[in-house]
Amino acid sequence: MTTLFYLVPVAAILALVFAYIFYRQMKKESEGTPTMKEIAAHVRKGAMAYLKQQYKVVTIVFIILALFFAVLAYGFHVQNTWVPFAFLTGGFFSGLAGFIGMRTATSASARTANAAQNSLNAGLKVAFRSGAVMGLTVVGLGLLDISVWYLVLNFFVHETTPEQKMVVITTTMLTFGMGASTQALFARVGGGIYTKAADVGADLVGKVEAGIPEDDPRNPATIADNVGDNVGDVAGMGADLYESYCGSVLATAALGASAFYSRGYGVQMNAVFAPMLIAAIGIILSIIGIYTVRTKENAGMKQLLKSLSFGVNLSSVLIAVATFGILYLLKLENWQWISCSVIVGLVAGIIIGQSTEYYTSHSYKPTQKVAHSSKTGPATVIISGIGLGMISTAIPVITIGLAIIFAFLFAIRFDVTNMLTAQNLSLGLYGIGIAAVGMLSTLGITLATDAYGPIADNAGGNAEMSKLDPEVRKRTDVLDALGNTTAATGKGFAIGSAALTALALLASYLEEIKIGLVHLGQTVIDVAGRQIEVVQATIPDLMEYYQVNLMNPKVLVGMFIGAMMSFLFCGLTMNAVGRAAEKMVEEVRRQFREIKGILTGNATPDYARCVEISTKGAQHEMLFPSILAIIAPILTGIIFGVSGVMGLLVGGLSSGFVLAIFMANSGGAWDNAKKYVEEGNLGGKGSESHKATIVGDTVGDPFKDTSGPSLNILIKLMSMVSIVMAGLTVAFSLM
Amino acid sequence: MTTLFYLVPVAAILALVFAYIFYRQMKKESEGTPTMKEIAAHVRKGAMAYLKQQYKVVTIVFIILALFFAVLAYGFHVQNTWVPFAFLTGGFFSGLAGFIGMRTATSASARTANAAQNSLNAGLKVAFRSGAVMGLTVVGLGLLDISVWYLVLNFFVHETTPEQKMVVITTTMLTFGMGASTQALFARVGGGIYTKAADVGADLVGKVEAGIPEDDPRNPATIADNVGDNVGDVAGMGADLYESYCGSVLATAALGASAFYSRGYGVQMNAVFAPMLIAAIGIILSIIGIYTVRTKENAGMKQLLKSLSFGVNLSSVLIAVATFGILYLLKLENWQWISCSVIVGLVAGIIIGQSTEYYTSHSYKPTQKVAHSSKTGPATVIISGIGLGMISTAIPVITIGLAIIFAFLFAIRFDVTNMLTAQNLSLGLYGIGIAAVGMLSTLGITLATDAYGPIADNAGGNAEMSKLDPEVRKRTDVLDALGNTTAATGKGFAIGSAALTALALLASYLEEIKIGLVHLGQTVIDVAGRQIEVVQATIPDLMEYYQVNLMNPKVLVGMFIGAMMSFLFCGLTMNAVGRAAEKMVEEVRRQFREIKGILTGNATPDYARCVEISTKGAQHEMLFPSILAIIAPILTGIIFGVSGVMGLLVGGLSSGFVLAIFMANSGGAWDNAKKYVEEGNLGGKGSESHKATIVGDTVGDPFKDTSGPSLNILIKLMSMVSIVMAGLTVAFSLM
Repeated sequence: MTTLFYLVPVAAILALVFAYIFYRQMKKESEGTPTMKEIAAHVRKGAMAYLKQQYKVVTIVFIILALFFAVLAYGFHVQNTWVPFAFLTGGFFSGLAGFIGMRTATSASARTANAAQNSLNAGLKVAFRSGAVMGLTVVGLGLLDISVWYLVLNFFVHETTPEQKMVVITTTMLTFGMGASTQALFARVGGGIYTKAADVGADLVGKVEAGIPEDDPRNPATIADNVGDNVGDVAGMGADLYESYCGSVLATAALGASAFYSRGYGVQMNAVFAPMLIAAIGIILSIIGIYTVRTKENAGMKQLLKSLSFGVNLSSVLIAVATFGILYLLKLENWQWISCSVIVGLVAGIIIGQSTEYYTSHSYKPTQKVAHSSKTGPATVIISGIGLGMISTAIPVITIGLAIIFAFLFAIRFDVTNMLTAQNLSLGLYGIGIAAVGMLSTLGITLATDAYGPIADNAGGNAEMSKLDPEVRKRTDVLDALGNTTAATGKGFAIGSAALTALALLASYLEEIKIGLVHLGQTVIDVAGRQIEVVQATIPDLMEYYQVNLMNPKVLVGMFIGAMMSFLFCGLTMNAVGRAAEKMVEEVRRQFREIKGILTGNATPDYARCVEISTKGAQHEMLFPSILAIIAPILTGIIFGVSGVMGLLVGGLSSGFVLAIFMANSGGAWDNAKKYVEEGNLGGKGSESHKATIVGDTVGDPFKDTSGPSLNILIKLMSMVSIVMAGLTVAFSLM
Repeated sequence: MTTLFYLVPVAAILALVFAYIFYRQMKKESEGTPTMKEIAAHVRKGAMAYLKQQYKVVTIVFIILALFFAVLAYGFHVQNTWVPFAFLTGGFFSGLAGFIGMRTATSASARTANAAQNSLNAGLKVAFRSGAVMGLTVVGLGLLDISVWYLVLNFFVHETTPEQKMVVITTTMLTFGMGASTQALFARVGGGIYTKAADVGADLVGKVEAGIPEDDPRNPATIADNVGDNVGDVAGMGADLYESYCGSVLATAALGASAFYSRGYGVQMNAVFAPMLIAAIGIILSIIGIYTVRTKENAGMKQLLKSLSFGVNLSSVLIAVATFGILYLLKLENWQWISCSVIVGLVAGIIIGQSTEYYTSHSYKPTQKVAHSSKTGPATVIISGIGLGMISTAIPVITIGLAIIFAFLFAIRFDVTNMLTAQNLSLGLYGIGIAAVGMLSTLGITLATDAYGPIADNAGGNAEMSKLDPEVRKRTDVLDALGNTTAATGKGFAIGSAALTALALLASYLEEIKIGLVHLGQTVIDVAGRQIEVVQATIPDLMEYYQVNLMNPKVLVGMFIGAMMSFLFCGLTMNAVGRAAEKMVEEVRRQFREIKGILTGNATPDYARCVEISTKGAQHEMLFPSILAIIAPILTGIIFGVSGVMGLLVGGLSSGFVLAIFMANSGGAWDNAKKYVEEGNLGGKGSESHKATIVGDTVGDPFKDTSGPSLNILIKLMSMVSIVMAGLTVAFSLM
């Protein structure tokens, strides 16, 4: 084993060490006045109460699934015996990352508000470094999990050849992704429902009915609303990207093990280590980028954005350069070409982020047009927002399409005429996987810019509720507005990486199918009259054996079901938000009615009750869609077999990707169209136009924060479930 | 040639004769008072003005495309020489069907209003029989075109074997479908934009700003609104289904020619004639069904619906029985099994229609829930309507999925273990095609129930504007409400049949690819090291040759683009409606301002100007999305080749199908949620709930009448373009 490998755990530990340093630094700051402390404590308590409840439910689901896997592995022998353990650790680490992120974010908001009393730069520093805790924890725990599992399996797995051993190790590691996926799904869906139920509930009764401003302490749902920002945007987003991060590295490692199988152990090992090492240097260079983020006092949105972008862009450029170096040192075959595939992923991520910003920021025409359509009322705001979201899918789809083709072509050295030979196909798919790793290599810093958003948002809430100097609120508002932009680009990034990761997982699925066949005792398969050893079977062989082509009715039906799953899942989560918000509306109305003196400020509302309602609502509502996402690929596998599952995954991926962009961008545009009016355009606050854009914003809330982002995980989770269940599908499918 | 074939032209002529009889009967009725005549004349003039303008634009597009095809066929020899002619006749007949339908519908509305002065039954009879003119014209012209082309090509085509001749004839005939598709796209998109621009414009200024009721003669846009109903729902829907009808018969014939190629000319010919004969008996039994539709006086919605359903169901049952008979007489191989495939299609159509009714009628819970969400304002109406639409995709998708599988399995006599052998695959795909024919075999009567809707709607408008007795308006309202339900089921039916037809077209595409290869002078292809004659190549051979499997990056990129195309197309048409409506709003405001005395009834508004604005807006806005739909498959073919095109078609089909159902059902539910409130629930007319549901209805208008239904055609048109361009793709693709 090359010593370069040890860079992976070292980088992971480095990330955790820096996360700890940033955490200590933040904790040393003062939380401010007693009121500020008290409010922060309320939010922290609420967030932890939510997490506790969430982990309870998730633990039960994990135990049931782990037992099920154990039965499959030890009872029916249709699964690797490591699966139950890998599944549990994946879930555990993902949950831990969410927990640490939440703990940090909820400790940081009052401190950010307090630091903003001194200067904008001080506020930015506290908020951003606290966000970085989340970013570094996710990548650190991810790579740590990967390297420890690699070392453990390297010790325990025994196979006839080292090459075969590497295949078994990498495909086994993949299954810990399912644990991360499952955790992520619950975090995203539960958090998404929680945050929007609280938000919509707080707005509809507080702002609209009682006429009190946002974040007013008299609103019983205001703490729940602030908790929601953390639950959805910190824990949810973190778990989502933890999963993409691990998934892309693991899938690419598995693809590398198979693509370079026949080239000897040394070559193969380098291909397996390459994605891990790119991720490792990504961590180190992200830390450098984080240190460069600072701004001048009196900085406006533009300068702030510039300083954040500078950090991210610096990291990206450094990673691009360092990729060539590390792959050269690794002596990876065609290192120059593979490095270009990595850069394709990096660039695609940036383009998708930019396009999201263009379509959702009110500095540009599309969102301004949505704002202008408010002149003819809420209906035209909705129509134009939906039109914008649908049209905005074009650039990201074309970008991902080009990224797929170019990552593939670079990896095969532009050998277009032999593009689809078995060898080139494996190599090209490895190129697509490593492009996903490239896109995610900056995760340490990009996630920091993302997790920073809700911290700034909460800091503003804290400043408002503690009645600090309006100057402070202005500063936190600048930080918050910036957070909205970074959140939008972060979402585009999350979707893009999910698509590439899912494609890499799709290819890995075939490796699991091979292992499933071998487990079943089948050593040869019959492809077009030739007998082919299962272990030696190439991707085209397997495609032909299972006829995974577009005229196979099982593939076609799978694709229809996959496309439908995206819509059904979105519809279910949209309705879940509606129901949970309704309960919140009732509770807030009840408190205004029954607790005398809330509105005059003489009585404290029962914040905890609202937190509890959001928590219960989210837990209750998240179960059905989540279980559906787990069951759909299993059922499809049992009824329609391998070809049906692949149809399901590809159908779900293509539709889900486009649907997710549409929903995220429509939602973002409505949000900012409202802000555009609030800034004094088209009549400003309180005008008919403003009311019309508020309708758009409320519709957009579940679009952009619940249903849209949950689709990323749906796509990946369905792939992961299929991978884990490959053995079952091979053994028991009906058709 | 079996004499049974002549049943096809005979049935076609029969349909046209009955259409003419119904037309004459309708024309004999009185148009009522001079005011009624005048209003009807306004609408008729407006509709004809629109059609004239539309045909002008379309003619230019047709000439350009026909010249392009002529260059490809005669200059580059990458296309069949019959294509330009087939293309033109397809477009001509489709346009003719639309013209006759419009002419009838606009003549029938005043007569329906007048007949409704006597009794409800009299009104129903005039409206429904006039709708039947459209239904019978579409199926009659469709089958006539098919049988004439068959006879002409049978005379002119010369090939080495009769089997090969049959393949060439059937694949050549397919290309006339592209003419029908192109015509249909313009009719649907143009008509959809027209009708909604007029509707939204009339509502926003007339109803909301000026406070005058629907269909009030003081509203300058009211005539344009009535014209729009005809333009969108009669001409648009007719062209759409003409295309599905011809497409399914022609694609199935082509599949039959290839599936039974090796079984000798006699067997093959029977397989080609089978879909035509099923369509032919469908016509005869639809006519019988039409004659059974009548109702008692004082009938409510339920009885009316029952009497319409009786007609449709009777036709369906008779067709199911007769299918066994006709396929037995034809001596089709496995006639019992193939008949079952036909019935699968019939049943699937009914289930999809029922599910549409369940989700969009306010007699059921889903739409009632949307109405109830109006208590918390327009935002929750939109959220719950979108949630409903997305969830409502599950049943139709599962139904189509089961239909695909069972139509396939019946056709191969449930030989599940050998499901995917070359022979069974061809047979099974033939089964899917013939299921589409089965679904559409009742078109004569189902389209009658559809086209009847706008006639009843216009009759109501005429009664209102002519100030007839309120009792008459009540009767036309009952007829109109029924029309809304049949329109919803009709839409479900149109989408379902489009999906099955597109699948059949997908399989036919491969036949065109084979012909393209032969044209190019390539007589053998290399499949897994074996040399296979192109003419003998089976579907699995071609799948392998082009690697049209789910791991081919070209397929994957094609699928992403296909999924994106559906969303982009919807977004463009949504925005087009917004822009066209804005112009209408300005014009109506201008007339109110500049023409004194409109609102007091002392001056007549300038109806013609509004008609002109809608017409110009629609013509202007329909071009870009339509051309995009034509260019996308051509570009994909040139860049990514056959596998990319198949990815595009399947990606577009799966996403587009689900998206179309979502949009149609959300729109339908919003419409009926508003009606539910207007019936006195939740505060009734004028309440806050009513206002909230009006927002939903306005958003739903372009959903259900423009973007959603246009997707059906997008799906089919992209397939047709690919088929016609197959030769070009084979000859010139880059990858």
